[in-house]
Amino acid sequence: MKTPENDLIRKILGKSSRSNEFKSGLRLGIGDDAALFAPRSGYETILTCDWFLEEIHFLRDRHPADSVGWKCLARAASDIAAMGGTPRCFLQSLAIPNELTGRWLTDFLTGLRRASRKLKCPIAGGDTTRQNRVLINVTVVGEVRSGRALVRSGAKPGDIIYVSGRLGEAEMGLAALRATRGKIRLNDPKLRKHLYPEPRLALGQWLADHRLATGAMDLSDGLSTDLPRLCASSKVGATIDESKLASAAVEHHSVPKWNNRLALALNAGDDYELLFAVAPRDAHKIPATYRGLKLTAIGEMSRSRGIKLLHPNGKTSPLKAAGWDPFRNA
Amino acid sequence: MKTPENDLIRKILGKSSRSNEFKSGLRLGIGDDAALFAPRSGYETILTCDWFLEEIHFLRDRHPADSVGWKCLARAASDIAAMGGTPRCFLQSLAIPNELTGRWLTDFLTGLRRASRKLKCPIAGGDTTRQNRVLINVTVVGEVRSGRALVRSGAKPGDIIYVSGRLGEAEMGLAALRATRGKIRLNDPKLRKHLYPEPRLALGQWLADHRLATGAMDLSDGLSTDLPRLCASSKVGATIDESKLASAAVEHHSVPKWNNRLALALNAGDDYELLFAVAPRDAHKIPATYRGLKLTAIGEMSRSRGIKLLHPNGKTSPLKAAGWDPFRNA
Repeated sequence: MKTPENDLIRKILGKSSRSNEFKSGLRLGIGDDAALFAPRSGYETILTCDWFLEEIHFLRDRHPADSVGWKCLARAASDIAAMGGTPRCFLQSLAIPNELTGRWLTDFLTGLRRASRKLKCPIAGGDTTRQNRVLINVTVVGEVRSGRALVRSGAKPGDIIYVSGRLGEAEMGLAALRATRGKIRLNDPKLRKHLYPEPRLALGQWLADHRLATGAMDLSDGLSTDLPRLCASSKVGATIDESKLASAAVEHHSVPKWNNRLALALNAGDDYELLFAVAPRDAHKIPATYRGLKLTAIGEMSRSRGIKLLHPNGKTSPLKAAGWDPFRNA
Repeated sequence: MKTPENDLIRKILGKSSRSNEFKSGLRLGIGDDAALFAPRSGYETILTCDWFLEEIHFLRDRHPADSVGWKCLARAASDIAAMGGTPRCFLQSLAIPNELTGRWLTDFLTGLRRASRKLKCPIAGGDTTRQNRVLINVTVVGEVRSGRALVRSGAKPGDIIYVSGRLGEAEMGLAALRATRGKIRLNDPKLRKHLYPEPRLALGQWLADHRLATGAMDLSDGLSTDLPRLCASSKVGATIDESKLASAAVEHHSVPKWNNRLALALNAGDDYELLFAVAPRDAHKIPATYRGLKLTAIGEMSRSRGIKLLHPNGKTSPLKAAGWDPFRNA
């Protein structure tokens, strides 16, 4: 790690040093050239990194700084959840404008530290520099018992497709945030889900421990964009049952129109729920809720490639990817 | 990893997939939610990340794209060298403008892949998105035998301070690059060192294997900025002998004036040489060159804090940090 800004590093270190109380395997964190991490015997290391950029992933004038801090770590940790792993530590690269090194940075670090404690994932190092916009990159290091990782490539035709939680909630939360004038009120669970998402670590670990998922990933860009990726990795197609999907969507009282709820469930991003496939013989082991988190069967994998939507009238139509893609949406 | 740009990912994957021929411990790379890495028993994992940003770390209209690709990985791997480790794999986060996804990206990936092969460090994953400037963040994962890592904190008063290579060469290379009109001629070794730095991995591993360095780091921001960091970690001061330092500076025929060479050796950045301390009883084990790389004793650690320069007339003066700091230089 290059550490050109000693004062910034001290600020980050001061806010985060107590997080080293976690038994994380970290032997040497911020302040040396690199971090040292003692891997556990019998485990594989999971590595993932994610951008979190002003104007693309958050809005400086809308998103509270502590939400930016929370979310940049939580969404990267969601990839660890998608692998069925446990986060162990993270590296954070931060570029910020000079004028944000005061209150904004303090609030950002408060949110980051809160996520770090909640996820039991201490900071191990990073790099800081200056830019006129906030740029964040987070690398999370996790662990999973050797051979138990959930991957995208094992789903078979006939496997049942599940999603966790309620799809579209985070996008509804974003809409609520955009509509807010003045102080943000966090009593709206959709707003909380958008600002402070919780990676589905317990669910991922349970699926991995019990070898229940033949293929899995997290939903970050919207089901219609992410499901084709899962299918491509597994070399299968899929049919999604609209009626079942609607019951996995944001609640009826929030969005009364069926079509709108369906569109949200298909295309809204940022939910960080898990999408996973289960062999038919194991489907009875999947409960309706896992630790309070709704699990919904929404369709099944098929031999014929392509993703189809099964309409309530019994007809099918091809599903178009309409989720988040910064290059396509440009 | 979020992978919103399937086409970009395919391009990166296509250019890099053969790098998986390295025996790297990688079980699953690009294309899943995260990478899986099998750590070796008896080794610690080294984690480091580095920004490489347009306008701050490179100039799009000056630096060839393949140099940007090489250097973003090489300089991150330099932190692994500073720990005495071996790089095993890397994650790359890339944000680029739409107009660079053609030839520029191809050349960038050529340079990145060349560095990846040279350093035996295959790509394990990453994240891509769109920005109007090129933003790069590289995380390198390395390994070192447990307990053998070179750290910054072990130097003692009386330890001899060494540097590898010739300091100031990379900054001379940058000056040559800025002065170049038209095609870049790589027969100038200083230009090569600026564009295609080689992390001092063999030296770092040798120092770690033989437990020779009591403290070590790599020189990225200039000796006058980096040495105080080494001293602070080790809770010591240092005295640098100007005459000895001058002999570790860029060659006489390149910069005839002694003062200018000294200023380059003290303050020039981007050299990615190693700075290390050796106990006096081990100093006889440090050769004048290691595998063709010059090693120079430039001073010693002291009990009294602060960094002093010993002038040829026998007087000393305090050394001011004048290396690279984007916040101070703003």
